[in-house]
Amino acid sequence: MPATTFHAFSPALNRPLPQAHRAATPDEVDSACLLAAEAFAPFMERSREDRAALLESIAANIAALGDSLLNTASEETGLSVPRLGSERDRTVFTLRHFAAIVRDGSWARPCIDPGDPNRKPLPKPDLRRMLRPLGPVAVFGASNFPLAYSTAGGDTASALAAACPVVVKGHPSHPATGAAVAQAVGQAVESARFHHGVFSYLQAGGDRELAIGEEVVLHPAIQAVGFTGSFRGGTGLAALAASRPRPIPVFAEMGSINPIFVMSRALARDAEAIAEKVFASITNSTGQMCTCPGLVFLPQGQNAQRFADRLAALVRSSSPQNMLGERIRRSFLSRMREVSELPGVDQLARSDGPSGEGLTQATTVLQTSLNTFNTFPTLMDECFGPSTILVLCPSENDFPAAAERCPGSLAAAIFCDDGDIALGLAEVLARRAGRVVFNGVTTGVEVSPAMVHGGPWPSTNQPHTTAVGAMAIERWCRPVCYQNAPIDLLPRELR
Amino acid sequence: MPATTFHAFSPALNRPLPQAHRAATPDEVDSACLLAAEAFAPFMERSREDRAALLESIAANIAALGDSLLNTASEETGLSVPRLGSERDRTVFTLRHFAAIVRDGSWARPCIDPGDPNRKPLPKPDLRRMLRPLGPVAVFGASNFPLAYSTAGGDTASALAAACPVVVKGHPSHPATGAAVAQAVGQAVESARFHHGVFSYLQAGGDRELAIGEEVVLHPAIQAVGFTGSFRGGTGLAALAASRPRPIPVFAEMGSINPIFVMSRALARDAEAIAEKVFASITNSTGQMCTCPGLVFLPQGQNAQRFADRLAALVRSSSPQNMLGERIRRSFLSRMREVSELPGVDQLARSDGPSGEGLTQATTVLQTSLNTFNTFPTLMDECFGPSTILVLCPSENDFPAAAERCPGSLAAAIFCDDGDIALGLAEVLARRAGRVVFNGVTTGVEVSPAMVHGGPWPSTNQPHTTAVGAMAIERWCRPVCYQNAPIDLLPRELR
Repeated sequence: MPATTFHAFSPALNRPLPQAHRAATPDEVDSACLLAAEAFAPFMERSREDRAALLESIAANIAALGDSLLNTASEETGLSVPRLGSERDRTVFTLRHFAAIVRDGSWARPCIDPGDPNRKPLPKPDLRRMLRPLGPVAVFGASNFPLAYSTAGGDTASALAAACPVVVKGHPSHPATGAAVAQAVGQAVESARFHHGVFSYLQAGGDRELAIGEEVVLHPAIQAVGFTGSFRGGTGLAALAASRPRPIPVFAEMGSINPIFVMSRALARDAEAIAEKVFASITNSTGQMCTCPGLVFLPQGQNAQRFADRLAALVRSSSPQNMLGERIRRSFLSRMREVSELPGVDQLARSDGPSGEGLTQATTVLQTSLNTFNTFPTLMDECFGPSTILVLCPSENDFPAAAERCPGSLAAAIFCDDGDIALGLAEVLARRAGRVVFNGVTTGVEVSPAMVHGGPWPSTNQPHTTAVGAMAIERWCRPVCYQNAPIDLLPRELR
Repeated sequence: MPATTFHAFSPALNRPLPQAHRAATPDEVDSACLLAAEAFAPFMERSREDRAALLESIAANIAALGDSLLNTASEETGLSVPRLGSERDRTVFTLRHFAAIVRDGSWARPCIDPGDPNRKPLPKPDLRRMLRPLGPVAVFGASNFPLAYSTAGGDTASALAAACPVVVKGHPSHPATGAAVAQAVGQAVESARFHHGVFSYLQAGGDRELAIGEEVVLHPAIQAVGFTGSFRGGTGLAALAASRPRPIPVFAEMGSINPIFVMSRALARDAEAIAEKVFASITNSTGQMCTCPGLVFLPQGQNAQRFADRLAALVRSSSPQNMLGERIRRSFLSRMREVSELPGVDQLARSDGPSGEGLTQATTVLQTSLNTFNTFPTLMDECFGPSTILVLCPSENDFPAAAERCPGSLAAAIFCDDGDIALGLAEVLARRAGRVVFNGVTTGVEVSPAMVHGGPWPSTNQPHTTAVGAMAIERWCRPVCYQNAPIDLLPRELR
């Protein structure tokens, strides 16, 4: 198969960028996966300190790319340089965070359970358990976070931390960004003299993009897959992986509605301030965040009106912003049309500010009643882009049942004040979301040991996992128990 | 739908038992699942101490059933009373083990990550994470362990420990045993004044058995499923659960080949003793154990001959034993025929002892070459019953590659002596099995914190889990993060 090329698209200019990128051939995909398999055993043999140093060296190399990386990423994604600067800092911090976790070693959950040769009726065996890495991992980069959830993002960092070699399938919307980061990783791997199969980067555009994704997931050397993206993409990869002669797990972080509930006392006290937080949350990165709040439940009345007025004013005075790409914009518009046309759904406000030249999109806020919400299940589907739907409820007593109906989410939020009876609602949301936020919005995912960035179906396909935080490393592992093992046959951590 | 009845089958008598058992109706299935949903919130609200006491009270009630339970179980399964006595003790021990785990509380992995209001550029939120129960769990009882992996076995004990109500689908081969245990559980639930939906027991025979299984798995109230049984059963339930509008996880422990590798020095020293251990392992419970070793790899030569001679002598002088049921026996015979007829596969020995009246089955040992093993993938499929296949290899240097070809297993074993170079093989087996045993057989699963009774596909469909040991409780949970939660809205463990 001859090599083909593809181009990124500039949302700001609304046209393809001139630089041509080579698409990976089937042979290159095969080599990357075979090299990853070859690298696995020597990678595991390197010390924890070496692995931590590798992650820190990757972090340093990415930081050293400086503004040039941010400019490239901004050109390819339409995201602003300051927004990308904080994403780059987050990526660097995540790599260092996992370096610290690797050094500490407790992530592997070692457990030593000594034997007892004198136990009756049978001697008790010596049992030692720890998490062991699964092997080569395929990571699918996301379009909306070209750094933090892509080439050297959280999935790659946590997989390398676990001693799993990584094969990245870069997102075709930011190939120059991906290649620059991949080079930074490759240099760190090389200078620390790790096997070069520890990290590979593959990309392609058009039809070939789907093909390389399938080739990687079906490759016998690959043992697990990390994916951040759409519901359709995630479930498609999971089905593909399940069809292998030896099925492998796919950890897919997919669409999420992230409902917010505002209780009456909080609303009475802070209607305008909460509206401002919601406005900032739905317009951050033009709403293209997996934790963007798609539904805001309010007890109807005068205070809900204050909230709606403030939110509407902010939206109307805002300008349309760039979206990541034409496909995402088309899908946003089609979802908005579908929802807006439902009887009982009204438009509250839409950006009236001047529109730029590029792939811009107005922020839109819709409004409906709880009754309409209960009638049309499509109102619970994610609408990826700058929008939200206010759901006016007869009273906050309706919140727990409404929350129960919401699909599984990465995050959910409650605004409550002293005297608001929020316990029942909090309990329901803890069953419907991976993270429950109080008096704040759902966007903003702290990189921290206690973070859970995961949740019930359909927000992920593996609700027991998280893609951010210390537990993220466990996705790439499996517990193994050694029974009566001679000391020199045990992994170092269990000796 | 009218209530129907069904009968258990006595393997020893080779005919149905007289007692008629009522099959659960669709309404009864629905009620049990709805009651479990209703019981969930009050169950979670009870203290850890209450939950631990419940598990201990179940253990005491089962122990109090005494010999009558063992006699009933023996009548229904054909397993011997002493064998069932140790299984009963294991069940009681498991319930007490989980009581201790609940009391300790660290199973929920609470993690508190304090906020920092002064952090720049943004304040750091207060984040607190712990494992929370998923909700009502359906447990499918296994035919081969009527006590330890059935009504109040490891799945039920670990789910109750996590505060998940349990709906058991009992195995139709031991309905009186299941009903007796269910009554013991129900009495414990009642006397501790737990909501009676915390535990329900359903059973049926014939076509209705499949139907109640499907009804339970598809019931919207059910949030997870535990299954121990065949590959076909496990993958079928997993596909069914994945087809729900809200898919739920199925934790299926399925077939497993559990290979044993005997290295040359160990073989030279202990050929006969190892053969004796293998014989005991494959005849324990008439080979109807998920950890029964289906393949034994040996370096060919004089010592392998010593091993084979001793094993053959033991097998020939043994008597056929009862199998659990006609369906299992038929499937064993059909697999044995399929394998025996392969060119290059020879019969080494078969039980010559006197056969009883009942559903008895002769132990059979087959023998083949590594070359034949590599030629016919069907030799790697589980053969559930009293048999094993010796695979004679040109040298032990062939072991790692042979191990790599073996399907995922619950357990694998290496017999090795000082001077045997076992590290490479041990590393491969740690990637192909949940537990690696040294100088012992794969049967015998200790109930202990460090145990892993799980493994790569196809031995389970969820390789990150274990069905035995402290981590078994984590199957019924999901991490939840609370961000900036008011103290009184947090679960007790996170305050």
